[in-house]
Amino acid sequence: MPNTNRQILLASRPVGEPKPSDFKLVETQTQPPGAGQVLCRTVYLSLDPYMRGRMNAGKSYAKPVEIGSVMEGGTVGQVLESQHPEFSAGEIVFGSGGWQEYFTLPGTALRKVDPKWGPISTAVGVLGMPGVTAYTGLLNIGKPQAGETVVVAAASGAVGSVVGQIAKIKGARAVGVAGSPEKCKFVTNELGFDACLNHHDADFPEQLGAACPDGIDVYFENVGGKVFETVLPLLSNFARIPVCGMIAHYNATELPPGPNLMPVILRNILTKRLTMRGFIVWDFAKQEAEALTTMAGWIQEKKLKFREDIVEGLETAPEVFIGLLKGENFGKLVVRISDDPT
Amino acid sequence: MPNTNRQILLASRPVGEPKPSDFKLVETQTQPPGAGQVLCRTVYLSLDPYMRGRMNAGKSYAKPVEIGSVMEGGTVGQVLESQHPEFSAGEIVFGSGGWQEYFTLPGTALRKVDPKWGPISTAVGVLGMPGVTAYTGLLNIGKPQAGETVVVAAASGAVGSVVGQIAKIKGARAVGVAGSPEKCKFVTNELGFDACLNHHDADFPEQLGAACPDGIDVYFENVGGKVFETVLPLLSNFARIPVCGMIAHYNATELPPGPNLMPVILRNILTKRLTMRGFIVWDFAKQEAEALTTMAGWIQEKKLKFREDIVEGLETAPEVFIGLLKGENFGKLVVRISDDPT
Repeated sequence: MPNTNRQILLASRPVGEPKPSDFKLVETQTQPPGAGQVLCRTVYLSLDPYMRGRMNAGKSYAKPVEIGSVMEGGTVGQVLESQHPEFSAGEIVFGSGGWQEYFTLPGTALRKVDPKWGPISTAVGVLGMPGVTAYTGLLNIGKPQAGETVVVAAASGAVGSVVGQIAKIKGARAVGVAGSPEKCKFVTNELGFDACLNHHDADFPEQLGAACPDGIDVYFENVGGKVFETVLPLLSNFARIPVCGMIAHYNATELPPGPNLMPVILRNILTKRLTMRGFIVWDFAKQEAEALTTMAGWIQEKKLKFREDIVEGLETAPEVFIGLLKGENFGKLVVRISDDPT
Repeated sequence: MPNTNRQILLASRPVGEPKPSDFKLVETQTQPPGAGQVLCRTVYLSLDPYMRGRMNAGKSYAKPVEIGSVMEGGTVGQVLESQHPEFSAGEIVFGSGGWQEYFTLPGTALRKVDPKWGPISTAVGVLGMPGVTAYTGLLNIGKPQAGETVVVAAASGAVGSVVGQIAKIKGARAVGVAGSPEKCKFVTNELGFDACLNHHDADFPEQLGAACPDGIDVYFENVGGKVFETVLPLLSNFARIPVCGMIAHYNATELPPGPNLMPVILRNILTKRLTMRGFIVWDFAKQEAEALTTMAGWIQEKKLKFREDIVEGLETAPEVFIGLLKGENFGKLVVRISDDPT
């Protein structure tokens, strides 16, 4: 102590797709933690689509990252020095540490990570925000019933992979949508979905219709765009649509071409009595502990599998984040910032 | 017996706005009721926007009216001859009798109308399908809380007028949208809404924003179109949108001009965690009796007012129905088919 702390700052607000120059790598020095604070070495940094929204100015459900500030992000860290009675050096914790090699947070903003639950990187994946998003959104809003059909896009990703597997656990059929034959194969062969379709295929709408012969009862919405348009006419009466993300539009600088689908959406909602409901994981914060223990149990029982896409080094984060928004990752994208001590 | 029965049939499926030639007036003879059936003289015929949907071919939440069949519609009738033990001549009943001077229905498809509750015409209005639609949709999906702001369009109409008044009864603010200064004046002065705005005004968006300084917590959707677009940015976090109709689009032959608002809708649902849910009145059929007795009580207590727009004679129905779709009525549109015996 002190150590050099490399950080990635938001250098400029992207117009459309983020560019490497929208990020800036700087070096600062770590400071000893203040009263109640904990200084941690970052081990894993999570990269998630929501971060694109934080790069924009303007009101959303969370404040934007300010220009010149460290990019936000969930992190798994190891405690180096603690001024909080509940944490001590060497422990593994989760917190919103951001894109940097060391982070200091109040102990109240940290949660301990139990390495017995699996690789500690899962604290930003299946046993973290993405997993809890899938669990709470699917079960509270989607409410899949045995025999129903659940469709989820980005099915090999951090959230979608969990959505489909929980649907299966609940006795529903799971149909995934993904962006490559390899991803689709993984989703069906490894994760056990009933089907997975490649949205790049020219006959994707026909494939999706064939895979959902009784219609779609739950559509877990995390992409928007063409997949949403394809799903809409296939939805069954009383279908539920948890709206969790719309990655297809995060980089958009203008509205998509084509006719105004507003009346089509309203007509489907009305005549089929659909429920569309947006949610953010922390809307169900009270369920987090239940979600984590339940999913940890399913992982032990081999009912819930996960795939991580781990890249090395803080400096790679901007590039792989840009790729994440284009669907280039395969599994939960995590950056290993320093050696995993477990 | 038998009597000449004038009927209005669907002559052709309208393309866009219905024309008088899409309807055909014919004369038939009434037949004595069969076992379990009841023959009634139509006193009031309800005209409602949903009927436009029944004129189209193709699947919706209900079957279309076939070409050459009697137009569907709710009716208040007086029993002429009954072959059902629960009904006897002279009684006032409600049933889906259609656009004709006499109707025969199974007794199981009829409900007795108690004239003590008010004018029997209300059985197709505030104490009928439109009132129950407002009651069940607002309370089950909209769930207005004291101090919240509820917005409803077609605010002087059969459904909208009830929505706003129930919102007031529940302690919420009610803001209406209507199509003329006279309607707006009625909505505020007679129905007691906190505000009512004319959507034809050039500065309607600014007016609506000013009338909802704390945002919109419940938007009861029965029109779609421009009003929906104007409401969307004003919705508060966790707002609820019961979707009951979209009259602005019922006559549309193509999608409206302008950009594709699909991502705008998804973004609002996501970031504000909105709930949009479509419903049809019969989805809440179990609540019908509760809704009717509760609203009858409110009418007695002068908490719930209603306005009827009564026109005379079966032959006027096509013309005034065409006008209804253009907002030309003022209050619940009802056709008096024969003398009201009460």
